[in-house]
Amino acid sequence: MTTNTVARRTRTPLTLLGTGAMGTALARAWLAAGHEVTVWNRTPARAQALAAEGAVVARSAADAVAANRLVIVCLLDDASVGDALDGALLAGRDLVNLTTGTPGEGRTRAAWAEARGARFLDGGIMAVPPMIGVADSGGYVFYSGSPELFEEHRATLAVPAGTRYVGADPGFAALHDVALLSAMSGMFAGLTHAFALIRPEDIAPKDFAPLLADWLTAMAPAVHQTADQLESGDYTRNVVSSLAMQAAGNATLLRTAEEQRVSPELLTPYMELMERRLAQGHGDEDGTGMVELLDLRAD
Amino acid sequence: MTTNTVARRTRTPLTLLGTGAMGTALARAWLAAGHEVTVWNRTPARAQALAAEGAVVARSAADAVAANRLVIVCLLDDASVGDALDGALLAGRDLVNLTTGTPGEGRTRAAWAEARGARFLDGGIMAVPPMIGVADSGGYVFYSGSPELFEEHRATLAVPAGTRYVGADPGFAALHDVALLSAMSGMFAGLTHAFALIRPEDIAPKDFAPLLADWLTAMAPAVHQTADQLESGDYTRNVVSSLAMQAAGNATLLRTAEEQRVSPELLTPYMELMERRLAQGHGDEDGTGMVELLDLRAD
Repeated sequence: MTTNTVARRTRTPLTLLGTGAMGTALARAWLAAGHEVTVWNRTPARAQALAAEGAVVARSAADAVAANRLVIVCLLDDASVGDALDGALLAGRDLVNLTTGTPGEGRTRAAWAEARGARFLDGGIMAVPPMIGVADSGGYVFYSGSPELFEEHRATLAVPAGTRYVGADPGFAALHDVALLSAMSGMFAGLTHAFALIRPEDIAPKDFAPLLADWLTAMAPAVHQTADQLESGDYTRNVVSSLAMQAAGNATLLRTAEEQRVSPELLTPYMELMERRLAQGHGDEDGTGMVELLDLRAD
Repeated sequence: MTTNTVARRTRTPLTLLGTGAMGTALARAWLAAGHEVTVWNRTPARAQALAAEGAVVARSAADAVAANRLVIVCLLDDASVGDALDGALLAGRDLVNLTTGTPGEGRTRAAWAEARGARFLDGGIMAVPPMIGVADSGGYVFYSGSPELFEEHRATLAVPAGTRYVGADPGFAALHDVALLSAMSGMFAGLTHAFALIRPEDIAPKDFAPLLADWLTAMAPAVHQTADQLESGDYTRNVVSSLAMQAAGNATLLRTAEEQRVSPELLTPYMELMERRLAQGHGDEDGTGMVELLDLRAD
């Protein structure tokens, strides 16, 4: 009896629906840790590739769901989840949905699964496939929904990546996921502009990159100031660089873009929002008040 | 003879034009380190406050410039520099300009100063006044221009904050400064959107902030990938998340913003740029190709 066989008798067996790049990485991580894994994929070829690595390939999604109590779903989108699970018997199943979606989709899918007798946990994967199953990769998964499901399967869920449970509301995993990706999108927009500024000059990108990485890393903790101001409701609290000063600095940013013949299109929306907040008479705040201006609920 | 008096005989005496918030912080740092500091300010009251701390207050900018070979300028903008130095004898002076400006202003001011017989160094301060003179504050100053001036006064310049010399081109200090601030502006836009997304929910900003700070810190090293691709000219090199995949993710970001009733105005320009690059047939790249799209020189 091999070590792997022993491991398989003590590890929770599980089903995985969807063997795209992420699903395949997840399956491999669980297989490597000694879990019995039943897989299904709409296009069978990708699932078959995992058979050689020890996975059981189910003929249908319904068969795959029937095989194990713990069912992980990692499909293209929420509509694919509905399609795949249509006709599967979900009563008594523990459904963990790692499909990318919105908070609203997470909530609706949770109600749908619970109506069919399943416990439901939604997940938002903060990693790319090469980070899955790699210790200390920094990747992790946000989970929200059934706290009982999370507690019971915590060790199994921790195999492919770190876990962060963010609440019983099944929409919170997707919300945290999307919020972080949105912030990253802004950071990437900023660094795209920064590289465009230096591009016409005799400055090596590899000399500039460490300065930029260090600066962004040093400035990231500014989020604690924003959080503190949002909690207190006082947006003038501990202000170091006021909106009035920042707006003056924006003029230098725009003139430099013009000199370097770089389009300012990635910078101007934030500057325009700043001008709107200033026009409301909040020059003594820093950026927190702009969070309110994005809120369309009052409109 | 006090220790401070001894120190003053061995430290380089210097002149500082401009005692706003930043100039005052600089003056205090040099005074605390035992430098003899002559100050001038257009509005004398703020300079007078420094007299009690040991500074010599000059009656005019020309007098201040005459007092010392090393002259630091930290005024409102480049026009103020021209106004203040109009009539001062600059021959033989070492002029260090810490006034915020564009690369073009740095270059023009350098030629102007050199034509008057001065050596010139431009600086871009990556710090706010409370960080000046504080050891390990993380703040520093980009310098570019005369390498001889920088080498000779390196120790003196290092008193208020760390120094990073980025080349003989007097425009490079401002360019590095503005590039980093532009990138930060993008990051701040992103985190403003992120906080707006969670605001309608029962999520404490102080619980969310560490997740956001850690995520941005973990993603900041992406700049090395961008630099590597720019150096190689191959924007498909080592791609982990392709533009095609990112664009699919953007749809989830936008639908989530709509669900949460958050204006997407800070995110859409980067998404639109991504769509333009995709439309050019570059779905297998990651973000680097967008740097080219911002370049208006070809238009």
